[in-house]
Amino acid sequence: MNFVESIFNKIAKKVEAEVKVPCYSRSVEFVLMAAQKTPDFWMIVRYSGEPLVVVASIVRELENHGLIKFEGNKILLTKEGERILENLKIGFGNYLCKACLGKTVSWDLGEVTREFLNIVKDRPEAVKEYDQGYVNSETTLARIAFMDQRGDLRGKNLLILGDDDLVSIAAGLTGLPKHIAVVEIDERLTSFIKRVAEEYGFDVAVYTMDLRNPLPEELVGKFDTFQTDPPETLPALKLFIGRGIAALKGEKCAGYFGLTRIDASLDKWREFQKILVTEFKVVITDMIRDFNEYVNWGYIEEMRGWDLAPLKARPTGYWFTSTFYRIETLKGFKGFNEPMPGDIYYDEETASV
Amino acid sequence: MNFVESIFNKIAKKVEAEVKVPCYSRSVEFVLMAAQKTPDFWMIVRYSGEPLVVVASIVRELENHGLIKFEGNKILLTKEGERILENLKIGFGNYLCKACLGKTVSWDLGEVTREFLNIVKDRPEAVKEYDQGYVNSETTLARIAFMDQRGDLRGKNLLILGDDDLVSIAAGLTGLPKHIAVVEIDERLTSFIKRVAEEYGFDVAVYTMDLRNPLPEELVGKFDTFQTDPPETLPALKLFIGRGIAALKGEKCAGYFGLTRIDASLDKWREFQKILVTEFKVVITDMIRDFNEYVNWGYIEEMRGWDLAPLKARPTGYWFTSTFYRIETLKGFKGFNEPMPGDIYYDEETASV
Repeated sequence: MNFVESIFNKIAKKVEAEVKVPCYSRSVEFVLMAAQKTPDFWMIVRYSGEPLVVVASIVRELENHGLIKFEGNKILLTKEGERILENLKIGFGNYLCKACLGKTVSWDLGEVTREFLNIVKDRPEAVKEYDQGYVNSETTLARIAFMDQRGDLRGKNLLILGDDDLVSIAAGLTGLPKHIAVVEIDERLTSFIKRVAEEYGFDVAVYTMDLRNPLPEELVGKFDTFQTDPPETLPALKLFIGRGIAALKGEKCAGYFGLTRIDASLDKWREFQKILVTEFKVVITDMIRDFNEYVNWGYIEEMRGWDLAPLKARPTGYWFTSTFYRIETLKGFKGFNEPMPGDIYYDEETASV
Repeated sequence: MNFVESIFNKIAKKVEAEVKVPCYSRSVEFVLMAAQKTPDFWMIVRYSGEPLVVVASIVRELENHGLIKFEGNKILLTKEGERILENLKIGFGNYLCKACLGKTVSWDLGEVTREFLNIVKDRPEAVKEYDQGYVNSETTLARIAFMDQRGDLRGKNLLILGDDDLVSIAAGLTGLPKHIAVVEIDERLTSFIKRVAEEYGFDVAVYTMDLRNPLPEELVGKFDTFQTDPPETLPALKLFIGRGIAALKGEKCAGYFGLTRIDASLDKWREFQKILVTEFKVVITDMIRDFNEYVNWGYIEEMRGWDLAPLKARPTGYWFTSTFYRIETLKGFKGFNEPMPGDIYYDEETASV
């Protein structure tokens, strides 16, 4: 092991001991590579692919070791930091498709896009109480395009579990699904969705309920496709995805959900993937990194990540992203529709609440 | 269950009993939806997302039931088939990004692209003996862009396990990796790669060997990134991916590979995903459907899929595709470097050999 590797290793060990979240020598490398791309802490979190709690701690350690420095709102590589990257010749290439931003699909749905952009001007704002934080309109529309591309939208029964992203509205505007239902805890959202549906003349069955309670019998085993964007604790993942699967009609139905790396280590991802293939017995068919881009929410200065951030400046771009997963049910699959009381929003890896 | 559903169910059961590969009511639906998009049997296989052996059998059954008909080289929906799709209102949307074709990255690597396109004019042709069938140049170049986008190329040690796609050449032309090695059984390919590397002035360490034997000690634990495109039997997947993982240096290194649905049911995918997260203890970070598009190989009329095809006409487009996976090693990961004698190319789901 050379000198630089031993510094990275030392930092990784110290960070992991401090934040109690897996941190690797290469996590340090990724953060340094991300700092080469952007001086904005929040964008460093996005590009590094590491949990925010880990990045915040690595950034402080890199500053202690003189590899980065803070100047005003900026995180900059020092000469020594730059020298290390030059010697290692490491970094990120920049080939992301400029047309779809890596989403694989176009979100130009014609009249639907125009109507949707108009409707969302009056949407309810995100609230901390329910870990809300909605995606930008391009993302919501791209989800519709992606589901339709896979044959999971038109003529299908679609269930949205938690809908601050207003997927039910975009789906309703297309007129393609056979039936749309929404389960959502926030009465502001359910009444907004009902009002829009009435105004634009499409049907959405809306259930204002807490998903910690089991789905009502009329929703179990009735849908072809579900979509959700759960909090990233393992109980919440099990709850939201398990409910979604329980709502599906049978084999070879589809589920879609976002999973971020910002509030969840890849080690936690692995645990969750194990639950998917061994407990729920579904298969993963697609995973599109940074498909979901979230609008900066109003309560950012109240969240744990703000306290952790080494610089108290607001993000300069879409920093919070998640990977879009598609799963499919197969022989032997099973969902989860038992009650799950208690707090599902917080664990030691969570920073955005 | 209505009348149409009961026909789909009946067909699915009959097909599964006949070909001994999982077939679902919805598999029949997907094949009918794909037949609405294209009259070419091979493209129906691609769009349906079902194994070729299953599609071939479903197509015959749909013809028996009068839902499709054969006209010359074409598979066409009958009036009854069209009526069913119209009533169900099901189908595939068409939103694939026209710029990147759903690959998420641009493959315009400037001078590298021009040189690569020139080099491949003289490439060795695919042979059946080693289950070869290479991807088009856009795909090889997009793999380089994708790896670089993830920080897995520049300054990294890259191992290619089986290289009829000539990824080592495209990587070498960029000048970005620190070190490139290729393990390949086919002497025609290893000498082609060596000759090109010499002519264009980059280094590739080339090993002409059979991967059923363990990797030599000098390759174990030495790489940051591996890339491979294995046959889809479970032993071959375990062998190629296991060798790749064994060659990696440590935690948070990356592996890339293609996995098709044409020679493998999603049920087999699920088994393999279980191996990934529980035996190899790696995490899946990306899965891009149809990222890999294969050039139609010379021996298509000799393969099992040709015998199975209901019409003996050559494909009209890139029909054979695979999903591009990225995995990452984490704490506790392990590879596989034991000998594995015997046939690894064939199981009951394989049609392209």
